[in-house]
Amino acid sequence: MSEKTASVPADQVINLGRRRLMAGSATVIAASMTGLAKAADTSSAPPPTSAGKPLPPYVAWKDPNAMIVHTGNTLETKRAAFGTSIITPADQLYIRNNLPAPNVSIVADRDAWEISVEGVKNPRKLTVKELKSMGLETIAMVLQCSGNGRGYFPSKPSGTPWQVGAAGCVIWSGVPVRAVVEALGGMVDGTAYMTGTGGEKLPEEIDPKSVIVERSVPKGAMQDALLAWEMNGAPIPHAHGGPLRLIVPGYTGVNSIKYIKRLAFTAEQSDAAIQRTGYRLSPPGQKGDPSQPSVWEMSAKSWINSPATDSAPVQAGLVQIKGVAFGGINAVRGVEVSIDGGKTWQAAKFVGPDLGRYAWRQFVLPVKLAAGTYTVACRATDSKGNRQPEERMENAAGYNNNSWRDHAMQITVV
Amino acid sequence: MSEKTASVPADQVINLGRRRLMAGSATVIAASMTGLAKAADTSSAPPPTSAGKPLPPYVAWKDPNAMIVHTGNTLETKRAAFGTSIITPADQLYIRNNLPAPNVSIVADRDAWEISVEGVKNPRKLTVKELKSMGLETIAMVLQCSGNGRGYFPSKPSGTPWQVGAAGCVIWSGVPVRAVVEALGGMVDGTAYMTGTGGEKLPEEIDPKSVIVERSVPKGAMQDALLAWEMNGAPIPHAHGGPLRLIVPGYTGVNSIKYIKRLAFTAEQSDAAIQRTGYRLSPPGQKGDPSQPSVWEMSAKSWINSPATDSAPVQAGLVQIKGVAFGGINAVRGVEVSIDGGKTWQAAKFVGPDLGRYAWRQFVLPVKLAAGTYTVACRATDSKGNRQPEERMENAAGYNNNSWRDHAMQITVV
Repeated sequence: MSEKTASVPADQVINLGRRRLMAGSATVIAASMTGLAKAADTSSAPPPTSAGKPLPPYVAWKDPNAMIVHTGNTLETKRAAFGTSIITPADQLYIRNNLPAPNVSIVADRDAWEISVEGVKNPRKLTVKELKSMGLETIAMVLQCSGNGRGYFPSKPSGTPWQVGAAGCVIWSGVPVRAVVEALGGMVDGTAYMTGTGGEKLPEEIDPKSVIVERSVPKGAMQDALLAWEMNGAPIPHAHGGPLRLIVPGYTGVNSIKYIKRLAFTAEQSDAAIQRTGYRLSPPGQKGDPSQPSVWEMSAKSWINSPATDSAPVQAGLVQIKGVAFGGINAVRGVEVSIDGGKTWQAAKFVGPDLGRYAWRQFVLPVKLAAGTYTVACRATDSKGNRQPEERMENAAGYNNNSWRDHAMQITVV
Repeated sequence: MSEKTASVPADQVINLGRRRLMAGSATVIAASMTGLAKAADTSSAPPPTSAGKPLPPYVAWKDPNAMIVHTGNTLETKRAAFGTSIITPADQLYIRNNLPAPNVSIVADRDAWEISVEGVKNPRKLTVKELKSMGLETIAMVLQCSGNGRGYFPSKPSGTPWQVGAAGCVIWSGVPVRAVVEALGGMVDGTAYMTGTGGEKLPEEIDPKSVIVERSVPKGAMQDALLAWEMNGAPIPHAHGGPLRLIVPGYTGVNSIKYIKRLAFTAEQSDAAIQRTGYRLSPPGQKGDPSQPSVWEMSAKSWINSPATDSAPVQAGLVQIKGVAFGGINAVRGVEVSIDGGKTWQAAKFVGPDLGRYAWRQFVLPVKLAAGTYTVACRATDSKGNRQPEERMENAAGYNNNSWRDHAMQITVV
């Protein structure tokens, strides 16, 4: 990961922030890096991943064989670790933090965490315990970093060079945001955005607006959003935003605010740097500014997990080509696979239950392959007929890569 | 758990076996108890569960706060640990082993595990690697011990006194058994049963038939059965039957054979004790025999997870009554909740995605409760209109308890 300071995109602000923190208040980092591992994991150094770098202590409970450790705050799921059971287990799910997590003491009493709800007729603070009495919804959702696939940009934008593993399909459970808004009298007039603010401790002696994690999304996203306390059947791990995370289905991960402490219905977008200039689809070579599209909704995307370039050579005969496909803001309708680099395509079959509009589906295509080299690719189509494009949309920071050509792989059959 | 030896039901055979093993070959036990924990967990003694007993070393990776440790081979999920995200995470899933697991070396090379398929036109051995080339299916399924709910039998049958936590909803991925049978030419004429044999090492100097884990189910169960290598998105943990487990959706857990080494299509049921006399619905006071019904298909069942008797007092006001409901061999159609001990009932609402016929669904019913004491109960109805009964079906070993009255709870609202 680049260490240069010029034109650092917003999703790298952690490095900027951490370097500054190291000059100033090192204790904040230390606090964020300790105490998070499961009890049984704390007595020994975490094992190195097979890629070499050890798991950071705060996520020492992750599966070291499933993860690629880019930095202390950016961990990617290995392509080979994605199974075919739809849901990504917590210990294999990617990590991408814009700031170090708050002190782990915030999960000592999860029900006591408070969120301030503003921009409603009757604004007030609510504890998680109160939220739990207000309603319940459960949603399966693709959580994907805005920069997933950045590693395929030939322009090598600064930021983590994710391939496919800054994504997972996760089940979230919490109270629908619309139920909370309704209970508090509805949104105020003139609302255009839902703005969430993270509860990370901010470094001192820096303009808070330059580092705070605060994102605005169009107010319509509220309809399916949750204030979630549970992930994959367990309280949300601290490293993934527990005790309370805003979940915005169909939007890239940065919009699902961890440790949410404030949810506001606002006329304008936040003026925090992460919203104003960060996460913008800027033309190559240009800095982000508010006139450019914000990184919000996800589009149709798919990739093959097996066989993969980095796995053992494939034996000739019947081969099951397997992968995941999703529609982003829309449901996924279908997915096609090519074994000749995109010249011809065959429809693959979805397998397993359909977990709903925002989830991904597993697909499989059985093909008979003779010895040789094949370029395998896949492309998804969403419920509105939008097809995953051949080419990426070039942008300065390497966001939203859903090019099927970039995600194609060469495999060798022996 | 009872330690007496007279009329030990089949699901306690492990204790019988282990005591005999201790007199004979202690190394088998030692081998089965080591090496299974995740690397990071092995350097320290496992933490005690809040119930007091420590996790056995081979499942030291389980969440100690979620589990009740009955014995080394019987661990139950705490009612309070069941979340609302449908899927039960691996580290919260119950454990019930009829024999100690084979040596952990069997998962060193999972693809090399062999299964013998017999009773087909072209019987042969197949490795997991070969099975992976033959097809793929993914099924969400309630895995439930035959004795779940035994703890509510006033007759106190011997065997683990499970309450609700010898169950979970799990996603399995593998090859459909029917695809394997088809590839091997189909079942032989006269087949009536599908018989699976576990790969556990058998104690010496005992009649193998008295301890081997070998179960027969009607051949029709083959239609939706899997030979599975993956559970909840990761290779099946050794403690849960990896590298390969037979999955028989809609049937109680004992029929889903761990470490499966032989799958046979047979005219008769197995003559192993676990099939012949074990897991029979015997009248109270009688021993099991082949004339009695075998414990096979599951029926409609539901229970409330929150609020629960053992949780903190509930605050008066709006309360979300939450639980799980499933149909067993059939899909679940609906579930009703009573707050007056079964005098009146209200339909609850299912939340979250429907994971299919064999999965459970989460339900919620918001109710306004004043201070007082309430007897809360729930009853599920399956897709064929079968309703969960008020009374348990009495039987000697305490199997198949789906009485809604037994599962009702008193809660206190303050």
